[in-house]
This record gives sequence, C-alpha cells and structure tokens, in this order.
Amino acid sequence: MTTTEVTSQTQQWTNLAQQLRVDSIRCTTAAGSGHPTSSMSAADLMSVLVLSHLHYDFNDPKNPNNDHLIFSKGHASPLLYSIYKAVGAVSDEELLTLRKFGSRLEGHPTPELPWVDVATGSLGQGLPDGVGIAACGKYLDKLPYKVWVLMGDSESAEGSIYEAFHLAQHYKLNNLVAILDCNRLGQRGETELGWDTEAYAARGKAFGWNTIVIDGHNYDEIDQAYRQAADTTDRPTFIIAKTLKGKGVSLVENKDGWHGKALSPEQAEEAIKELNPQVRSMVFPVQQPAAGKVAPEPPARPLELPRYELNTKEATRKAYGDALLALGAANPDVVAMDGEVSNSTYANEFAKAYPERYFEQYIAEQQMVAFAIGMQVRGKITFASTFAAFFSRAYDFIRMAAISRANIRLSGSHAGVSIGEDGPSQMALEDLAMMRAVYDSTVLYPSDPNQTAQLVAEMAEHSGILYIRTTREKTPVIYSPDEKFSIGGSKVVRQSDKDKATVVAAGITLHEALSAYEQLKGEGINIRVIDAYSIKPIDEETLFAAAQEAGGKIITVEDHWPEGGLGEAVLEAFTQIDAPLPQVVKLAVESMPTSGTSAQLLEAAGISAHHIVEAVKALVKSSR
Amino acid sequence: MTTTEVTSQTQQWTNLAQQLRVDSIRCTTAAGSGHPTSSMSAADLMSVLVLSHLHYDFNDPKNPNNDHLIFSKGHASPLLYSIYKAVGAVSDEELLTLRKFGSRLEGHPTPELPWVDVATGSLGQGLPDGVGIAACGKYLDKLPYKVWVLMGDSESAEGSIYEAFHLAQHYKLNNLVAILDCNRLGQRGETELGWDTEAYAARGKAFGWNTIVIDGHNYDEIDQAYRQAADTTDRPTFIIAKTLKGKGVSLVENKDGWHGKALSPEQAEEAIKELNPQVRSMVFPVQQPAAGKVAPEPPARPLELPRYELNTKEATRKAYGDALLALGAANPDVVAMDGEVSNSTYANEFAKAYPERYFEQYIAEQQMVAFAIGMQVRGKITFASTFAAFFSRAYDFIRMAAISRANIRLSGSHAGVSIGEDGPSQMALEDLAMMRAVYDSTVLYPSDPNQTAQLVAEMAEHSGILYIRTTREKTPVIYSPDEKFSIGGSKVVRQSDKDKATVVAAGITLHEALSAYEQLKGEGINIRVIDAYSIKPIDEETLFAAAQEAGGKIITVEDHWPEGGLGEAVLEAFTQIDAPLPQVVKLAVESMPTSGTSAQLLEAAGISAHHIVEAVKALVKSSR
Repeated sequence: MTTTEVTSQTQQWTNLAQQLRVDSIRCTTAAGSGHPTSSMSAADLMSVLVLSHLHYDFNDPKNPNNDHLIFSKGHASPLLYSIYKAVGAVSDEELLTLRKFGSRLEGHPTPELPWVDVATGSLGQGLPDGVGIAACGKYLDKLPYKVWVLMGDSESAEGSIYEAFHLAQHYKLNNLVAILDCNRLGQRGETELGWDTEAYAARGKAFGWNTIVIDGHNYDEIDQAYRQAADTTDRPTFIIAKTLKGKGVSLVENKDGWHGKALSPEQAEEAIKELNPQVRSMVFPVQQPAAGKVAPEPPARPLELPRYELNTKEATRKAYGDALLALGAANPDVVAMDGEVSNSTYANEFAKAYPERYFEQYIAEQQMVAFAIGMQVRGKITFASTFAAFFSRAYDFIRMAAISRANIRLSGSHAGVSIGEDGPSQMALEDLAMMRAVYDSTVLYPSDPNQTAQLVAEMAEHSGILYIRTTREKTPVIYSPDEKFSIGGSKVVRQSDKDKATVVAAGITLHEALSAYEQLKGEGINIRVIDAYSIKPIDEETLFAAAQEAGGKIITVEDHWPEGGLGEAVLEAFTQIDAPLPQVVKLAVESMPTSGTSAQLLEAAGISAHHIVEAVKALVKSSR
Repeated sequence: MTTTEVTSQTQQWTNLAQQLRVDSIRCTTAAGSGHPTSSMSAADLMSVLVLSHLHYDFNDPKNPNNDHLIFSKGHASPLLYSIYKAVGAVSDEELLTLRKFGSRLEGHPTPELPWVDVATGSLGQGLPDGVGIAACGKYLDKLPYKVWVLMGDSESAEGSIYEAFHLAQHYKLNNLVAILDCNRLGQRGETELGWDTEAYAARGKAFGWNTIVIDGHNYDEIDQAYRQAADTTDRPTFIIAKTLKGKGVSLVENKDGWHGKALSPEQAEEAIKELNPQVRSMVFPVQQPAAGKVAPEPPARPLELPRYELNTKEATRKAYGDALLALGAANPDVVAMDGEVSNSTYANEFAKAYPERYFEQYIAEQQMVAFAIGMQVRGKITFASTFAAFFSRAYDFIRMAAISRANIRLSGSHAGVSIGEDGPSQMALEDLAMMRAVYDSTVLYPSDPNQTAQLVAEMAEHSGILYIRTTREKTPVIYSPDEKFSIGGSKVVRQSDKDKATVVAAGITLHEALSAYEQLKGEGINIRVIDAYSIKPIDEETLFAAAQEAGGKIITVEDHWPEGGLGEAVLEAFTQIDAPLPQVVKLAVESMPTSGTSAQLLEAAGISAHHIVEAVKALVKSSR
C-alpha cells in the first residue's frame, strides 16, 4: 500500500468505528437502556474486521461461504446492530427500535435476525457454539469460511470457555478466531484479571492456541492480528485486545458504574459531539464470500432400522446406538457426538462406522451441546449423547438452544434408579422435568428397543430440542419391529371393558406395570396400561379416554423425582379439557436412592410392580 | 532420616499401597462391578499422603482441624474405602459390602460416610467443592487444615475445573492441593491429552498455581511434591502424577478396555498373587490434626429485618439484599457469594458491610454453587445469588448438592418475562421446574418485600437446597412488615363467601391477579386470590379449601414456562387427597418472549390481569 492508501484505509476504519460508536449510543439512548460502553470498546476491533477481513454477503445470509460473526458478549448487541446498519442490512429507522416490543433488534441477539447464527446473552456460549460451526467448516463443509467470535473479558471466568479452548485446539480449528475485548470493567467493577493481558495470553497458549496480544484501539495492530490469524494453518487464534470501555467519550471512558446504562439524550448529544464522526449513515462495502461449493453429498439411502425379535431382551440405550448407526447409513447429514461415554450410550457404533461424522467431546457436556448447536447452524442433523444425569451440566446451553431456535437431538442413557449399583450421582432423576421445561422441546422415554429405533428415526425429522431418555438395563422386547410409534403418540398396552383404573407408565416402569397387571388380573382386577413413551407432547386423547372408560382413576409411575416428570405431564393434560381432574395417584422416587440391584432400587423407590399393585388396590377401593 | 529409616518408610508406603490395591480388587470383585483399575493407579499417591502428610482423626470426623480428603474422581471409591479400612475406620467385612443394597459404601462416595465431605461421581465437582472448603479454612476458620483433592485426568475436560483453578488462585488458597492421577486412559480409550503431563502443567501454570510434575509411582517424588505443597504460602498446588491405570497387575496395567470393570474371582486371585502384598489387613497410623481452635465468634445478635411501608414500591430482589444484610448483622456464620452481578441481586449490600464474609465468584456459576457447598461443609450458612436464569448453568452442582445432603441457599433474581427489555436470554422461565425437581428442595417465590425478608430469614434456619426467586421490577408493598410468612405457607389475599373461582398466583403474577380481582368484582364476579409464595412445599390445605369453597375451579398463573412450575405444583397437591377434584386452567408463558416493557411482555405471554379476567370468565361460564 502507498502512504495515501494507508491513510485512506485508516480513515475508513476510523470512519466506520466512530459511526458504530455513535449508533451504539443513539440506539441505546432511544431505548433508554442497553450497553453502549461495552459496544464502544470493541468498535475499532469490529471496524477493521468488517472492512478488511470479514467475507459476507448480507443480501444472502444463507450463503454457505459466508463467514460467521458471533457476539459471544451478546450484550454488545448495539454494536452488532450498528454493524448491520453500516453494511446496509438494517435501516437507521429500524436501528432505533432497539429493545422495543415488536422489534427484531432485541436486548441480546437472536436468530430472529437472519445474520445471527445463535442466540447469546448468557455468557460463555458464543465461543463454544463457534467451535461447532468451525468444525463443520473444516471437516464437513470443507469451505474456507472463518468463524469470528467477539468475547467479553468477564465471560472468561466461565468454565465453558476452557471446554471450547480445549476442543478447538483438539480439532485444530485454524478457521476459528476468538477476539477478546479486554476492557477491564465488568458489571460491578473490575474483572478478576483486569488488563493483565499476559495472564489471558498464558491461558490461550496453555491450551495450544495461536495467541496474540494487541492494543484494541490500534488499527494496524488489529489488522496485523487478523492477518496472522488467517495465516495460521494448524490451530485456532486467540486475540487479546486491550481496550477502554466507553472508548472515545470522556464521560464514560474507562469509568466504573457505566455498565449496561444508556446515556441521557443530553449526554448522548455531548458524546456524539466529542466523537466528532466524519460520517453518520454511510454504507460500507464488505468483501464477498468465496465461491466455494459444498461437496456434493452421497445420496440419501432408504433407512433400515434395526429389528429386535419379540420376547428377546435388549436395552433401549443399545437400540439408540443401533438406530443412530442406521440413520448414519441412510442420511449423510447425520452427525454424532458424545461426552467420552460412547461405549455406554452406544454412540460408538456410529463413531466406528462414520468416524468422519463423529466428534468426540471428551467429558465436556456444555461444549458438546454447543457443538451440536454449531453444527446445526450449517444444516447438520446433530445427535449428542451422554448419561442423562450429565445433561444437567449443559442446561443453560439447552435453554439457550431453544432461544436460538436450534434443532438438536439429545440422548440421555442410564435413566433413574434402575441403573443399579453406581448410585445416585449417575442416576438421572430430574431430566424429564428439566427437558420438559424447555421451549418447543420434545421428550421421549421408550420402553422397548423397536419403539426406541422408530422414535430415534422420527427425531431426525423433527425440529426443536428433542430429548430421548434411555434405560441402562436390558428389558424385554414387547413390540414387533413392524409396529409404528410416533412423537405425540402413546400405546394402550392392556385394556378391557372392565378396567377399574389406568396405569400410565414409560420406560422401565412400563415393565413393572405389565407385571402388576398380571398380578391384579389374577386377583380379578382389570386395569388399563398405557405406555406414555411421548412425554411431551403427551397423547391427551388416549388419557382422556382412559379417564372416562376406566373409572376416572389414574396411577402414574415413573423412575424420576415426583416433580415435573411423567405424572405432572399427565396432570397437565387434564387442564386442557373442560372437566374436573380425574383422581390421580403418582408413584415416583420419593427418597434418595443408594447402590443396589435394579430390582432392589425400584422396590425401595416405591415404583416396582408391587407398589403399583398396592396403589391400584387402594385407589380402586377409595370412596369417590 | 538415616538409610534404615528411609528404607522402612519406603517399605511402609509400599505395604499400604499394595494393601490398598489388593482391597480395591477384592471389594470390586465381591461386588461384581466398580473401578479397581482407576483405584490402583492412585494407590501410591494415596499411600504417601495417608501415611506422611494427612492430618486426620478418623475417630472424630467433626474435628475442625482435620484435613479434608476429596475424591473428585469419585469412581475411585474402592481406593477411598480401602483407605478407610487401612486407618481402622471401616472393617474388612464392611469393605466387602461395596455397592450392595443397604451398604453405606456406595458406588460413588456420599456423606452417608462421616469422613466424606461431599458426594462426587459427577466429574469436575470435587475440586470446585474443595475450593470452598479451603477458602473457609484460610479466611474464616483460620485453621491450618489442608484440602487434598484427588482428580482424574478425564475430568480435566470439564470447564468447572478451570473455574476452580481461576478462583483458587484468586483467593491464594495455599492450603489446597490438587493431585491429578494422570493414568492416560478414560472410559472409552485414551484421554485427549494422554500422558502429556507438560500440557497439564502449562494449564496449571497459566492459572497461577504452583505446579509440579512427578512420577506417580515414585514414592520419593510424591513425598517431595507434598512437602513442596506444604511450603507454598501464596498459591494452590497442582501435582500432575504420571501413573499407570491398573498399576501392578499385568492383566490390566495400562490396558484399554478395563475401565469400570471388576476382575473375576479367578483373575482377582492371580492379581493378588502378582501384587504379593506384605500385609493384608494392617491398620496404619495417621497423623493427628493440629490442636488449633476456631476463633470465637462474636455473639449472634437479634435479627432486625428490613421493613417496607405499605403502599410504597420496592423490588423483591432489593428486599433479598436488605434481608441478607440483616442476617449478616445478626449471625456471624452467614456467608454470601455472587456471580459478578451483586449490584443487580443486591448481594452488594452484604459485600460492603461484611467484606470478610463475602466471596466474589466472578461469572462462574458452577464454582459459585460449589463454593457454597464447600463452605457449608464447615458449618457456614451460605447464600449464593445470580440471575435466576444462570443457575441453570449450575444444575448438575445443585443436583449433586442434594446428594451431598448440603444446606445451601440460592437466590435467583430477574425471574420471568417481567424483566422486560433484556430479552429471553436473561429471563428465568424454567427455574421453578429445575429447582422443584431437586431432592429435599424448598422453592419460594415472594410477591412482596416484607414477605421476601421474612422468607430469607427462614431460609437461614432451614436445611436442604433452598431457592428463592425474586423479581426485577419494583412492585407494590401489599403486606405489613408485621405479618408472618413461613416456608410451606400461603396467603389468601382476597376471599368472600361468593367466590366463583380461585386464582393461584405468586411473585409478579400476584399483582396481576389482584388487578384482575378488581376488574371482575366490578363486573359482579367474586374470586378468591391465593398468594402461593411457597411453591415447594405448597400449602395443600389452603388449596383444598379453595377448591371446595370456590366452585371447584382454579386458575393458576405464573411467569414461567407451562411445565414444572406453579401450575404443576398446584396439580400435584391434588394427587394427595381422596376428594372431589377441581377443574384447573393454567396460565403460563406459552411463546418465546422478546424485548419490550414488563407490561407488554406479561400481556404477550398471556399472564396479565387481562388474561386472568378472561380465563376466569370462561371457566366460570363453563358447563360443569
């Protein structure tokens, strides 16, 4: 570049940066809330990125060659939206709707905006999500797009950042660049590390990243760092940029007490005067993405699900693994991951057959869910598995996945006390409650391997957050491989016209219910038995019919705490109709389990056949 | 030491190590399951620790001067229990009850054993828990006890480990020693870092720890490392010990495929022959703890709760902060922590008044909950606060806290859509479901600041996992400061003998219900309004009475997803009685919220006064 070019380039970077600052102030002042100062610290970083390094067609957000820009510090949304204005994607008028009801410019970014891949705002998530996208680019799409993640310094306290550091280095994601906006000030004062950029650098280096410390307001240093990131071929890049929060406005620059506060209209006017922007509503050019094509995929093949013979035994977790393997054969878009327990969840069958589409996550459940979210940004059908109990580790990521409108499929094995000897730390007893309380989620809990296989196949076709709970123990095959099971369905397994009560069960407890049925029948008491394998959505019609036809008496039985699981899902169904509730008795795990055999623990928990028999008898006798 | 002494010391270390290996094999073989190989790798590390560095009176596990020994790799429980046998705390007979129903020697350690501080088995938790104990030792107890944490190498992939690294260094916990049993093999194959001990060391150093790499089977190196840890005055110590999984038995040593598998009786016999132990059931001496005394505490003072005048306005989150401050003044055992949002949760009032009892956790919610767990091991009354949504980050820790029988108090602010402009990432809409589904939990959701203050005071007195959900917005003070509110209670706020239906609300929705009451009254429809501030346990009697006296029609309304919250808690109550059942309609947040004002979002969510009025009218009209 000649001196004139350099000057002109610097001037352009300055012009955009100041416009971004002005707009970040304007839109938050108009909203009366928001984060102008956290936006201003990163304006120079983003100006150089957008003008000189980002490749993105804002008219075509679905272009597979677009780079990905993720604001892991989602509260800097005013800066992100000001970028969208600066590239002509959002009008000035829309920018000023920030945080207002009905605007797609929400307090924190969500994919309601077509250029946003994932919702952020819960800190420490954008980087792990970016790891999934970058892995997809490098290993599956094989396209040269880059993933740029703007991080806050406060969020480096979240453990999930190190799960991401760990995995990004493991997968040598040289297409991933994390830019730390080290502005020293958190919400309530100084961050733990303040401006100790060397401490951040030591962490980056310890995790094997290409690590660069710069002055985040020096355009040449910023530009140079991005170039160096582009030249790196074997590892991700971590740029630690020392910045000033509120940079450019003396009222707020590097001042405590200005986190998450809008300037008053008068303060804003003064601030803009001080920023003295050369342009106000200029539209800046962005480099177009490369013209790479996604490699043509092998054509999808017909799905051949595993089949299990009636009256043999198999664990539903094994059926999950078998079905995932079958999906892998049928559909090249199916991708799997697991948290270092693939020999227990049986994801290892897929891993062996399709190693190029299997991504080991080690014991890092937050990163695993984020990886699934990242991969689905690029259209992959993602299945992630671990022990059901350990998805509790990733609950915030699952919650945020729903806000991201992500389509992810989670398989939790080793549900409930029936796992036996390992004891309560390995038993999922809250997973149904946790997964039901996720927006637009689907919650499945099959009792039979043929049923499991069919539901896993359905999961691949559905959207939203899908969860399947499987059992560790081998259980009898009770359904023919040709029987059909669907999300939202249920199966009436036993019924007669003399049913005195209905037992609603799922998974392991269905087998207890069937055993109770036999005992009760021997004593002349007929019961209806429903396999409620789809817990959300639940088959309301079948429940209503049972309540009407079988004495208005229902017993639910589940290998789960009493709260939020099958029993409450059944009760919930009866709030949908214009009638009083049926009489419902809930059997669930009421005391802290220990080690023991599966049978001992089901009995101790009060959810065995024996307890069902007693509950039915008491309920049938009851006065009502 | 003379040469003879050295030899005899080495011989003793060897004797104990081999006995521990033999017992780890024996008890797992007797159980038919468990983790002998993960125990054997760490036997030398533990032998030197127990014989030469641990200070512990096994006859007096409550002795405040005892060291703390935490198996963060909880699956190595056979080794831990073999240590308990070797020090005479557990008989050989009891050791062989491992994993059997009724035994306190569960698959993973729990505080059912008096020498176990915290339940482990979900990986990556023992170290964060240990940080809390060590901080208590250094800053509150001011006793010279040490906290020794045995870590697995696989669990170093969990982000929570780095949250612990971060905070332990911040608080300069020189009394904390993490011992990494780097045996290279995880559950399904090699760990990500294998035997790359330098990579582990780089991480330890990057986080500012005193970091030592040793051969984990070389007694002198082990002994030296522990000595060096003891000499460190300003930082925690991280010992990375290269070990062999299954060390000492050629059948399993450093062999893949032996994770979590017991040897057959024949294999065990061969293995023990090969180990050739010099002693089998020797009881080894352990050094007694120091005789330090916990500093006498200033006497407790009468509790003076804050008082809010009727018809003023205040946010319940502010009342939490005020009440916590009052508790701090009254009780020197009250300790508080917060995840870098103390100016939003109002924990900052306590932090300013009692800085010596306030521990900033930065944005690391897993570590925050673990810190609370660790501090309560030493009898502290711990309160931890953040936005309610972000407790989802720590759900696995909360689940494990219940297994630890820990007493912790969590305060989640910014509940529901009523927070307004910040959008869904900051809105807790699943926290009631999540917290209800925790064993022995208490879930509170006050509507009024005077009520909040009373409930916070009650939380200090109660055991188990206690959760209070608070509101961001200021709401009217509706209760006198002299009115009494208790866990398990409720308050009938409006009633008459002409009530046609009952509205059950809590928190922000109570104010909507009161507004709906006025509108309905104006139209000649009387309703009963219940403030269900104690969601778990819920006040069943008041609900039953309402169902009987007010037309058998109940409307629940909550700022939460439909699943697992207030509505389901109310339904659950009606499974407890053999009596006529009400018709229940649930109002809850049914669609993904956006940004907007509190009023706009309550309306959009379908939980405003207007929606309550409509629901009441429809229900009252309904055919029944």
